[in-house]
Amino acid sequence: MQIGMPWAPFANTLADAAGKVILPHFRSNLDVENKEVAAFDPVTVADRAAEEVIRKLIGETYPDHGVLGEEFGDTSDGAEMVWIIDPIDGTRAFISGLPVWGTLIGLQQAGKPVFGMMAQPFTGERFFGDGENAGYTGPGGDRVLKARSCASLSEATLFCTTPALFLNEARAAYDRVEKAARLARYGVDCYAYCMLAAGQIDIVIEDQLKVFDIMPLIPVIEGAGGIVTSWTGGPAIVDGKVADGGKVIASGDRRVHDEALGLLAAR
Amino acid sequence: MQIGMPWAPFANTLADAAGKVILPHFRSNLDVENKEVAAFDPVTVADRAAEEVIRKLIGETYPDHGVLGEEFGDTSDGAEMVWIIDPIDGTRAFISGLPVWGTLIGLQQAGKPVFGMMAQPFTGERFFGDGENAGYTGPGGDRVLKARSCASLSEATLFCTTPALFLNEARAAYDRVEKAARLARYGVDCYAYCMLAAGQIDIVIEDQLKVFDIMPLIPVIEGAGGIVTSWTGGPAIVDGKVADGGKVIASGDRRVHDEALGLLAAR
Repeated sequence: MQIGMPWAPFANTLADAAGKVILPHFRSNLDVENKEVAAFDPVTVADRAAEEVIRKLIGETYPDHGVLGEEFGDTSDGAEMVWIIDPIDGTRAFISGLPVWGTLIGLQQAGKPVFGMMAQPFTGERFFGDGENAGYTGPGGDRVLKARSCASLSEATLFCTTPALFLNEARAAYDRVEKAARLARYGVDCYAYCMLAAGQIDIVIEDQLKVFDIMPLIPVIEGAGGIVTSWTGGPAIVDGKVADGGKVIASGDRRVHDEALGLLAAR
Repeated sequence: MQIGMPWAPFANTLADAAGKVILPHFRSNLDVENKEVAAFDPVTVADRAAEEVIRKLIGETYPDHGVLGEEFGDTSDGAEMVWIIDPIDGTRAFISGLPVWGTLIGLQQAGKPVFGMMAQPFTGERFFGDGENAGYTGPGGDRVLKARSCASLSEATLFCTTPALFLNEARAAYDRVEKAARLARYGVDCYAYCMLAAGQIDIVIEDQLKVFDIMPLIPVIEGAGGIVTSWTGGPAIVDGKVADGGKVIASGDRRVHDEALGLLAAR
């Protein structure tokens, strides 16, 4: 699977290193009797430590590559190859002890996504893709990722992080889609896009995403045959920013995608 | 940890057997390109197969024990020792491919909970307790489970499966509590109670629970120092049924519990 993806081995090295520094902070209060003892914020400490180790490895191995990370910003300075990093996507899941956060690692060449990975070190899962193909390694074995077919929203399982993130007109637009969907579920950030790529769910709608929240997932979704656009149907990322203030929609089947775009645009 | 819990070894045997029959059905469509190929309902097949294997093991090992299971009902017939089984709690997570469902295994003696376990075979985690103590085994190592202290709802992380399950007055009551909480999260069924026992979150509120949804979790929550009651503050289970039509509230700290009970009762 990874043979055709030249960036997969190095992304695995980055994910290994990040997982090693993040995991000691995950559920670090499990054997702390009193939360006052843990005065630091474990997710912030882990986030920064992971991005530091990733940046160090990239700098040592590919000194001409740039990095844009959630914690330390954009230090890419015009580089052709730019790594886009979110050390812990799903911080609310992380602080709640739920294993549905992930380390996002993406690579852009001249502004175009060429590789992406989501790594979950607690479960040992990795979802990765290059826009043409997508794959999975984990406790369930190695698999090819393929989005599933779904003829209409009335048969679709929809995910969003939480409806509370949609404000004003965006909330009304989202609600129209949720009402038309068979089942709506909340709360899983990057994991939702990976489940879409795995053919488990059909559509993900989000708002207020930053480029590091979604760029690393695009080659996975598209590699699995899925579609990612802005809410108006254009590219999700334009000039290095998420279009429409961070409004992204991803689907496994074009029919569902078009139906949802219509409802998002309706008044 | 398990030395003081005489039922833990047999519960582990049951959980091992259940996990073995459930896991092949989890994400079984990962390498199925077209969902029409998977015409069966994988969660129903796995649910029934797991309860069958659990019932068989109990019948062979403790023929005088009764069983009450989600799939095959109450066959306890007046037995003093009754196993309460939910093979897959969190079926919506299961069908969405998310590893936040669990196999629930509880034991009652003369109607009183004496042991409970939540087993997650994909992550390899087990949460168990006897009402006095609670423990964890998993990839993070073995731990004692202790609920954390939390002085008020304004500092609390609250979980429910989805607000859509609360109807009419119950929804208004729940909303009062959510509004007072620091952070609300949705979507994780049995996992939420285990995260409460692990000191990761502070309060869980649910409605329409059946006895097999909550009984196996009570010895874990109470063993970790948490509190479980009905929404009116009485026992969660009365005469083998969940009180108040399935309305359950669990907290890690008595202060948060009492504050939430007050808001649930307010008009």
